[in-house]
Formats: sequence, structure tokens, C-alpha cells
Amino acid sequence: MGDLFWPGDHRAGDHFTSAAYLEAMVAVESRWAGVDLAGLVGPADLDLLARDAEGGGNPVIGLVRLLRERAGDPALHRGLTSQDVVDSALMLLASAAVTDLLDDLDRVVEGLAALATAHRDTPVVARTLTQHAIPTTFGFRVAQWLTGVLDARDDVRRLTFPAQLGGAAGTRAGMVELGRDVPLTPLPWHTTRAPVTRIGDALAGCTDACGRIANDVLTLSRPEIGELAEGSAGGSSTMPNKANPVVSVLVRRAALTTPQLAATLHLAAASQVDDRADGGWHAEWATLRDLVRRTLVAVSQTADLVGGLEVRTDRMARTLAEAGDDVLAEQRSLAAQAGHDPAPSYLGQAGGIVDAVVRRATLSQTQENR
Amino acid sequence: MGDLFWPGDHRAGDHFTSAAYLEAMVAVESRWAGVDLAGLVGPADLDLLARDAEGGGNPVIGLVRLLRERAGDPALHRGLTSQDVVDSALMLLASAAVTDLLDDLDRVVEGLAALATAHRDTPVVARTLTQHAIPTTFGFRVAQWLTGVLDARDDVRRLTFPAQLGGAAGTRAGMVELGRDVPLTPLPWHTTRAPVTRIGDALAGCTDACGRIANDVLTLSRPEIGELAEGSAGGSSTMPNKANPVVSVLVRRAALTTPQLAATLHLAAASQVDDRADGGWHAEWATLRDLVRRTLVAVSQTADLVGGLEVRTDRMARTLAEAGDDVLAEQRSLAAQAGHDPAPSYLGQAGGIVDAVVRRATLSQTQENR
Amino acid sequence: MGDLFWPGDHRAGDHFTSAAYLEAMVAVESRWAGVDLAGLVGPADLDLLARDAEGGGNPVIGLVRLLRERAGDPALHRGLTSQDVVDSALMLLASAAVTDLLDDLDRVVEGLAALATAHRDTPVVARTLTQHAIPTTFGFRVAQWLTGVLDARDDVRRLTFPAQLGGAAGTRAGMVELGRDVPLTPLPWHTTRAPVTRIGDALAGCTDACGRIANDVLTLSRPEIGELAEGSAGGSSTMPNKANPVVSVLVRRAALTTPQLAATLHLAAASQVDDRADGGWHAEWATLRDLVRRTLVAVSQTADLVGGLEVRTDRMARTLAEAGDDVLAEQRSLAAQAGHDPAPSYLGQAGGIVDAVVRRATLSQTQENR
Amino acid sequence: MGDLFWPGDHRAGDHFTSAAYLEAMVAVESRWAGVDLAGLVGPADLDLLARDAEGGGNPVIGLVRLLRERAGDPALHRGLTSQDVVDSALMLLASAAVTDLLDDLDRVVEGLAALATAHRDTPVVARTLTQHAIPTTFGFRVAQWLTGVLDARDDVRRLTFPAQLGGAAGTRAGMVELGRDVPLTPLPWHTTRAPVTRIGDALAGCTDACGRIANDVLTLSRPEIGELAEGSAGGSSTMPNKANPVVSVLVRRAALTTPQLAATLHLAAASQVDDRADGGWHAEWATLRDLVRRTLVAVSQTADLVGGLEVRTDRMARTLAEAGDDVLAEQRSLAAQAGHDPAPSYLGQAGGIVDAVVRRATLSQTQENR
Repeated sequence: MGDLFWPGDHRAGDHFTSAAYLEAMVAVESRWAGVDLAGLVGPADLDLLARDAEGGGNPVIGLVRLLRERAGDPALHRGLTSQDVVDSALMLLASAAVTDLLDDLDRVVEGLAALATAHRDTPVVARTLTQHAIPTTFGFRVAQWLTGVLDARDDVRRLTFPAQLGGAAGTRAGMVELGRDVPLTPLPWHTTRAPVTRIGDALAGCTDACGRIANDVLTLSRPEIGELAEGSAGGSSTMPNKANPVVSVLVRRAALTTPQLAATLHLAAASQVDDRADGGWHAEWATLRDLVRRTLVAVSQTADLVGGLEVRTDRMARTLAEAGDDVLAEQRSLAAQAGHDPAPSYLGQAGGIVDAVVRRATLSQTQENR
Repeated sequence: MGDLFWPGDHRAGDHFTSAAYLEAMVAVESRWAGVDLAGLVGPADLDLLARDAEGGGNPVIGLVRLLRERAGDPALHRGLTSQDVVDSALMLLASAAVTDLLDDLDRVVEGLAALATAHRDTPVVARTLTQHAIPTTFGFRVAQWLTGVLDARDDVRRLTFPAQLGGAAGTRAGMVELGRDVPLTPLPWHTTRAPVTRIGDALAGCTDACGRIANDVLTLSRPEIGELAEGSAGGSSTMPNKANPVVSVLVRRAALTTPQLAATLHLAAASQVDDRADGGWHAEWATLRDLVRRTLVAVSQTADLVGGLEVRTDRMARTLAEAGDDVLAEQRSLAAQAGHDPAPSYLGQAGGIVDAVVRRATLSQTQENR
Repeated sequence: MGDLFWPGDHRAGDHFTSAAYLEAMVAVESRWAGVDLAGLVGPADLDLLARDAEGGGNPVIGLVRLLRERAGDPALHRGLTSQDVVDSALMLLASAAVTDLLDDLDRVVEGLAALATAHRDTPVVARTLTQHAIPTTFGFRVAQWLTGVLDARDDVRRLTFPAQLGGAAGTRAGMVELGRDVPLTPLPWHTTRAPVTRIGDALAGCTDACGRIANDVLTLSRPEIGELAEGSAGGSSTMPNKANPVVSVLVRRAALTTPQLAATLHLAAASQVDDRADGGWHAEWATLRDLVRRTLVAVSQTADLVGGLEVRTDRMARTLAEAGDDVLAEQRSLAAQAGHDPAPSYLGQAGGIVDAVVRRATLSQTQENR
Repeated sequence: MGDLFWPGDHRAGDHFTSAAYLEAMVAVESRWAGVDLAGLVGPADLDLLARDAEGGGNPVIGLVRLLRERAGDPALHRGLTSQDVVDSALMLLASAAVTDLLDDLDRVVEGLAALATAHRDTPVVARTLTQHAIPTTFGFRVAQWLTGVLDARDDVRRLTFPAQLGGAAGTRAGMVELGRDVPLTPLPWHTTRAPVTRIGDALAGCTDACGRIANDVLTLSRPEIGELAEGSAGGSSTMPNKANPVVSVLVRRAALTTPQLAATLHLAAASQVDDRADGGWHAEWATLRDLVRRTLVAVSQTADLVGGLEVRTDRMARTLAEAGDDVLAEQRSLAAQAGHDPAPSYLGQAGGIVDAVVRRATLSQTQENR
């Protein structure tokens, strides 16, 4: 079921496929029933369930009918409402996806930390507003990339994936009627959607950080600049000469689309009303799916991008040399103002900042693995 | 391949599926080659092509390789660039989808025109900022719904779906080198994306108009108001008493998501650079697909909604009667100020406006069918 | 300087006005210079500075020129770059705004906690997908509102407002050249914008929570439902009978606009490139201003809304009574299935959930005030 | 009242200021009353009116009170509703702004047509996905910029700015009661907002087109590429060496923000309900203002950018020469496949396409001025 519209989509594997969603809903019903219903429904039922979903507005009614028939147990699902099943299943899916996402983020962090360390002292020209500014190091720039990814990872790590257990209107009346002993927490969140918007915001943070790296690779691998190259560049359908920075292009693509998806989750949250909502809830599902899959793809691609990046230190040196006195204009002006000769180096705290960011990466990487 | 995340998705049929996209790309290559390549590749190739698409950033390189191998003709595609194939194929898909969309819009227009005519003089209370305002007619309100749909349809009708034929960098150098006689127009539009953003804007206009109808149905079918009911309301997974306005809920869902997708198309257009872009182009494909499919689903659902709508004129009359003198407060105040007794009716031009809107619908419906 | 386009804007006071921004930039320059420059520039300079800002792309160049002239000190600003001043100033503004925002959020929390407690056991019909579902309590619904606000407040409390101190390209080279002793942390964040996107996400979370309350008030104050009324409803320019739920309308308005502003901040972050960016940074300023001011207004309005809300327990009781047996259909069905008579009440854990949410509110309110 | 948060804002002049809005509302009331009320209220009243606007949700109630008092005529406004005044006033403002916008678009068109003509045959390397592709001409690239602007201008020219005249609920009941003779068209559009969303979409189209130009200038004025330079580049607050492409940066900034504002207008349209809406309408005003002002600024800046652009044909030639054989790889491959020697030039229809686009510009410019 390859998706020709989103090259690289296969990297997201089975996360948030309809089949995985179905499986997660069955897992939720199983846990509630205390019996394993896995296998009673499967991919062969997807078409029918998808069509039936329109009748009730979500796939649970059709699913419950199938499960009850096939298990011969009319008591299945009793006490739950469809939103309990959908929300809990989506959180199971999100939790599994975020586990893989964190692995990929770790790969990016490791790759960037190694790169920053290796090029801690590699001189390169700094560019601001597209123009040559002052000297810096390539390690310093990588440290900025790394900071972005570490900030994003912090937000992802903080995510929680609460089960939803509220019954028809969140009060758990049916559960109590049935004598079920349901712990108070997590409280129902049928109409308070921070668990969902926080996922969206954190994922957008990931593609922000990856997109920012891709932008630099796209710029610095322009032939006139040539300081970087993608390890395995892509070809063209017509030009034998082309080596396109395709991975960066695809990462940048994702970064252009996820913020609006995260905004949709906020709008859905802001559209909640009554005890269960009339559209705001339904707008979340596909939006969350697309956000999750695209972020998984983008972060995985970024890990490859970082791992295979070719760093052309000769070009970096040459460009800096050619930039010549210009990029020391600020130093001369400041030294003159301070009444001393310019210092032999003009890298400020670049090295120390690299060290600090790498230390943050190492510490947070270790903490996580304990 | 039912989509459990977007109930009703099957209404969009095969529009913009990966298989349809593949077929459209083959049609583009066929037209260029002057030979029918249909059947050389098919659904069985989708998985491979999707994976390969990551290498080149789009599915054309892999597709051309397959086509050349299987047709035994290395000259296929020569002169084109991958963007020619992708853009032309997407426009073929969009054109086909818009044809169906217009049929559904016509269904909505017909339904609403009939409804407005039938209830041209059905009295009902007007509500502004949620509160009772003055008397109006249900036909007048339907005429507003209809105006929204007619405006949206005007914009959809104005869409064009140009083929893309520019070669490697838009200059058609390869085509000329090959001695191909390519007419000047349509000019290449590799980096000028109005054909795409206009589609997005027009489709968002459709879901705006449908969402606005759904909002009214959701409000007016609340049990305390009860002036409308969906013809075939949906059930609940746990509450036997429920008859949910599910179609309206699903239409409203779409209306909450499409504006951000249309915004993504604008951002993609604004991110164009060079002679073919580094991500802005790639961000369009899935976004356009989702926009098209969701709009098809929403308009089709709206046609059903309108066709099956139950109008409770008794409740309308009762509510208006109960609102009593209050909703004539404006009339009394104006009449007093004008120094005459209030006129027996306070419907202003409501009837004439209904007639004018229905006339517009009839005229534009007819024009289209000539 | 009233803003006719955003009624209620005055509630945001001087937060993020151009004058306040100027003052904050002067405070940043003062701190760096170690001398108090306050008063050297002021509102009278705004017009000139705003025009000059176009030349350099930001207001700092013009400001530094004025400050140096008027202070007679050409060493001012030396070592800083304009982004240090702008970012640090915006964080000062944001920090001050968030302090006031938290006060208003506390007011909302207190109001909702009191309301939830007062109506812990007030029976009301629960509504799902707009239709009557089962019985619940008004306190339970308020507890949902409160949960949303508490979640939002948690995210706001977690915000940090780092100063920016990086010099021309983030390396602090100029500072070191001048012999300034700059502590390593906070590290420069010229191109890693999580400090900004987190503010946007947290503020959108606030308007989500407030918008969700407004939606309920708008629904429940419809005359046919009449369970709630705004304490001081607004009038109409023409209808003497109208009492519009204006505060809710204005809160809902904000909730419709902030998600897209937060998305713009993410897009700006994703557009970072080089050592300081070519537009992504500049897109943040006005966006952040609008987000902050609109959120301040919306939360302040929500505090008033909650404080003045009229709860019509008689209408609640009447509607629930009229809903009659229908809303107990689930209970009967579950009881029958469980083989016992329906329990006398069908409120499940509603009371316990209210207590838990109020406890969370009380605890977190106290913690903050220590 | 310079806006430090949006450098260049002064270019939008008085369009959509609160004062201009007030004036437009007075013009609407004057036209309805048949007397000139100009001067009765003015800037001195803005603060009060802005504060009062919160009470009614919009500024009209307070305005009417002032006008009636000061004109001594309690009949003013009778028959209108506040939305009639607000919508009509906003359309007056939009119409005036679009008139100026079209002037600036014409300036951009003229500048680009001249530039494309002047460089019709200036050889330059084409870049796709950031990499050297084949030869092209600078005139061809400018023709692409021009096509984008012409497409955008077509959409702006198509805009209409209908007055709003519906009375309390759109039926014109009050007007009829007062014996006012109101022509049927334009029909009321209180809840059908295509007039507003079309403006938003067209304006976003303008910033798309301008942003696309800015992206190229930003890329091509990088020192390593150096094919273009802004005529009057901006300085830095600390680096004497810097010449920043500030105008392009500011144009790009706008292009990153307007799509989300246009999306907000669609969401507002999709949130319409009843006979006048409960927040969707109110969300439009400031959003439209920001969209209009930012577009005016961006197009005006683009006109300057184009007018002052420095084209470095020497660098263009040198880069193309250095790219050497590589950029003719496609030609060699195609020629070999076709069995002939490569033609002496590889520019395809570049010249003809430039001519066609310039012709379109000339024709449409002339048509407009007749």
C-alpha cells in the first residue's frame, strides 16, 4: 500500500494504518472485557468497517457489532462509549509511534553530537541574513541544529498517553451501574484535548528542528557554496548530471505541512462543546495520523541525512579565506573601539558552546537509557 | 482500502488514490510518447514505486525505468522532466475529481433550491448571535445556504487544469533538441503555482459553504429547538435513545480541516525558488489529495443531508409563537418612530430574496447544462 | 489608541505595544551597557524608529543610533547584534504578559472551582453530538471546563523567557573581544526557536480552553435551552429585545484565530537557516504580539464570564425532567443486561470527578502562591 | 503610530487604521441617512468607541449613540443592523486598499516586464532542487516571476466589494417597515462570506508571488552566487561589512504569515451559523486588516525591489561557464539518442516564452488602463 503522494512514507511502517487502528481498538475492547478478542476481526473487515463508520460517525459501532457476533458475547463494550475506544486506541497508537520516534530522535542526537565534536574547531564563515558575517566553526552550527533537536526531544519525552474511560457522557455512570470498579484517574478527557494538542505541538517541534537542518543542507550543498553534500544524493529523470539533495528536500516538505496540522488539532480542541463534541473530535483522527507519520518519516530521514552528510572542510576553508578581511570588520571595529589590537582568533565562545550542547546531549541521552 | 480515520472517505471513490495517480502518470507518458502504455504498470508495482520514490524525491524516475524496461523503449519520457509528469497527472486527477464534485454541487443546489421554494413562506424565528431576533422564513435561511453553495460553485467552475510541459528547467530545451513541436501555450508553470492554490481556495470555499449548512442543522436539530432533523440519523454504541446528526458532524469536521490544507498550498507556492523548488513543490501532492477527497466527501454528504432533511414546521411555528412580542420589538420601535402602526407582516423582502436566489440557481444550473 | 477591529483589546493594556517594545529594548541595552538609558528615547521617537526599521529590517539600528547620539556614548550596544536586543526585549515583554496572564488564569480557575463546587450535585442533561444522552451534573460539566484551563495553565507555567546574548553570529566573538565576561548559559538561540513556539503553543492552549467554555455558554444560553445566561449580556444596535452573549462571542472569536498564529510561529521556526535567518525570524514579532494580546483579552473575558454566569437550575431541572425516560435508556439496557433493577441514581462518579478536579485546582493554586 | 513589530508597515498608509474604519462607518451611516455625518466623530472618540465596542461586540452601537446625540437625530441608523455598517465599511476600506494595491502590482508588472525584456537573452544557469540543471536565461526566470504576479493580479482584479444591507436578520424587514425603497441586489450576505474569503485568497496569492521573487533574490544575492543584489541593501547593527538583502527578507516574512490569515477567514466563513454568527464574523475584522496591510507593504516593497535590482551578468556568465559541460549533459544525452550532434544553443523556447509573458503583461496592463 505504498503512498505515491508522500515519498518516504514507508518509513512510518504500520504506525497509524487503518489495520493498526483496528487492532488497537480491539485491544481496548479486550482489556475492558478481560478477554482476548485479537483475531476476531482483521484486515479483511476494514472495507466494511470503514463504510459502516459513516453511519455512526466513527468505526466503533460496526466494530462492536462484529465482535459481539463473532465472540458470541453481547456484553462486550458495555459501559464504554465509542469515544472511549477511539481515544484510547489513538493513544496506544501514538504511544507506540512516539517510542519509535524517540529512537530516531536519539539517532539524530547521536549523529549531531558526533558531528559537532568532530568539527568543533573547523573554521567556516558564519552567514546572517544570507550574507557573510564573521568566522565561526562548523561545529558551532551543528550545535545549533542539535539544540533544536534536543529541545524538540524534551517536549516529546514529556508527552503522556492517557487511556480514555468515561462512558456515555464522561461520568462513568454505565460502569458504575454494571458494578465495575474503575479507578478515578486518569480522569475522562472527552472534551479537554490537551493530550492531543500537546502531541501535535511536540511533533511540529520535531519537524521544525529537522526542517531547520534541511534548510542549511540545501543552502550549503548548492554548488556555488559546496560546503556540504548529502551522502547519497538523488538523481533526475532527465539530467544525468544531477545529484539532488533529495532527503533534505523531503524533510523540508514535511516541515512546511505539520504546523497547519497542529493548528487543526488546536482548532478541534477549541471547537469542543457539550459532553462530547459535534465535529471537533472527528477532525482529530486523520490529522493526528498524518502528523505522526510525517514526523516519523522526517526524523528518520534526518537521522540518515546526518549520518551520511559529507562535510567539505576544504571548501569551508577556501570560502572563509576568500571572505578575507571583510568578515573581520566587526572585530577590527570593536578592537579599535576598545583600544587594543584584534585578538588572533575571533571565535568567541564557539568551542565552549559546542561542548555545552554536546554535554547536554550526552547527559540527556544517558538519563533516558537508565 | 477503507480509511477508518475519515468515515465517509469511500464516497471519494478512486479519486487521487495512488493507483489512480499511477494511471494518470502513465497517461501523461503515453500522450508524450504517442503510444498507449496503459497496463505496463499497475497496482502490483505500487509498493516498489512508492519506496523508489524516496530516492528521487518523486515517483517518476522509478516509473520511467519500469516503463522503459517493459516497453523495451528507452526513448520514453525523453524531453520531459519528472515535474511535467507529476503536475500533469495531478491536473488530470483534479479535473476528473472536479467533474464529479460539480455533479454533487449541482445536487446540493437542486436540493436547496427545492427546499427554499417549498419553504419560501414558512415562518420561523431568526436568530442572531444565538438569540431570537425577528421573524423570518425557513426559505430565507435556506436561500442563504444556497447562496453560499452557488458562490463556491462559481469558483470551482472557473478552475482550469493546465498540463505541465516545460522540460528540465521550463525552457523546453530538450523538446526542441529532439525536434518536438510543442505549442507555446499553456506556458510552463513549474514555479508559479496559481493553478494549485486556486484549486485549494475553491475547495475550501466548498467546505465553508457545506460547513455553514451543517452548523445550522446541528443547532436546529438540538432537541430543545427541534426545527430540523437529519433524515437518517446515526446511532450510538451505547445509548439506544440516541439519534445523532452524524452527517452534519462529518461535514463540519471537514470544514474545520480544509482551510489549513489550502494554507499549506499557499505556503508551498510562496516557497518556490529557482527553476524548480526544493520542497515547496513536494508539499503540495498529499495536501491536494486530502483537500480533494475531503471536499468530495463533504459535498456528497451535504447533498444527502439536504435531500433527506426533515423540516418540522410545527416546531418552527410554535417557537415563533412562543417568542411572541419580543421578536417584534424592532418593528414596534421602528413603526413608532415612523409614526404608523406596525404592518401586519414583518418579513421585508424575504420572499423576493428567496426568489432571486432560486432564480440565480436555476439560471446557473441551466447555463452549465447547455 | 483603541483598536476598533478587536473589541476588548484594551484589556491587554500596554503589553506588547510599540511603546512597551521600545522600552524593553532600551532596558536590554541598558543592562548590557550597565547604565540606565531609560528616558533617552520615548513615544515621540516611535514614528521615526518604525520608518527606519525598514532599512535594517528591524528597529535596533535606528534605536542604537539615537541612543548613542543622545547618551553621547558610541560604545553602547557594542558586542551585541540586533537579534540579541529584539529577542531579549520580546522575552521581557512575554514574561511580563505571562505574569498577568497567570493572574487571569488563576481568576478563571477560582471561578470555575467555586462554580463546580456549588453545582456539584445540580442535575442536568448531558449532551453528546448535540443530542440528549444521559443525566449528569452541571458541576461535572464545569469540572471539564476547569480541567481544560488547568491543563493550559500547566503549560503556561512551564514557559521560560531566556535572554538572547549571542553577538553577530551567536558565538559571542565580539563580547570576548571586548573582554566581557558572559556566562555560558543561557546558550544563544538565534536559530533554535523553541522558546518562541512553546509560548505560541501554550497560548493557543489557553484560548482552546476558553473557547471550549464559550461554546457551551453560547449553546446553553440559546433561548430554547436557557440553562445559562451571561451576567451582563450585550445589546443590539436595532433590536430592543436582544440580550446577546457577547463575551462568549468574543472569546470564541479569539479561539478561531490563535491556532493559525501559533502555526505561523512554527513555520517561522522551521524556516530558520544559516546563523541568523532571512525572514523566519522577522515573521515572529507581530505574530507573537497578536497571540499574546488576544490571549490576554480572551482569558480576562473568560474570568468575567465565569464570574458573572447565571445558572438557571430550574431550566436544567425542567429539561432533564422533560427528557424523561429517554436519557435513562442506557441505564435500563445495562441494568437489564446485568440482571438487576436500575439503581436510583445514574450519575456514576460525577461527584468524585468534580471533587478530584477541584482538588487539583486547589492544590495547584496553592503551590503557585507559595 | 509607527508599528515597530512590522517594519515597513507605514507603506500601508492609513488603510484599515481604526480612524479610517471609523470614517468608513460614518460614510455608511451618512449614505443611509442621506445626510453628511462626517466630522461628528473623529480620532478623539476612538478610545471610547473601542472600549464601548466590547459591550455590544462591535463598535456600531457606541458609534450610533454618539452620532444620534451629536446630530440630534434619533432616526439615524434606523433600519440597519450593526453588521450592515461593519461589513459595508470594511468593503469600502478593502476597495480603497485594493485600488492602491493594483497600482503597486502594476508597478511590479512594469518593472518585471522591463527586466525580462532587457535580459531576454542573458545566459544563466538554471537551478532545480538547488543544483545546476541546464542553461537558461535570466529573462526566462524573470518571466516566471512575472507570470506569478500576473496570475495574482488577475485574481485581485476580479474582486468585488458589495455593500451589506440586510437589516436585523438579512430580510430587510425594518427597511420595508420604514418605507425605504431598497433595490434587491446586492443580496444580503450576512452569513455567506465569499466576498471576504475571496479577498483573503487573492491577497495570499499576491504574497505568494512576491515571496517567490524574494526567495530567488535571497538565494542569488548570496555572496557565493552573487548574480543579483538589492539596489539599496540594509546595514547591520554591529558588522560594518554587511549589506543585507533586507527588502527581500521583509517580503519573505509577509509570505510566511498571510496563508494562515487567509485560512482564518475560511474558518470564520465555515463557522457561520444562524442568521448572524456568534464569533465567526468577529474573527474576520482584524484578520482582514492584517492581511490587507501586509500585502500592501509586501507588494510595494517588491516594486522597489524589482526597480532597484542589480543584475550581475558577469557573474551569471562566469558561473555558467564554470558549470561547463555538466549542464549540457541532458542535451548530449538527448542528441545522442536522437542521432544528431547537439545544437549550438540549448535554450529551447526560452525567448518565445519570455515574449509571450511580456505580451500578456502588456495586454493586460493596457486593458486595465482603458
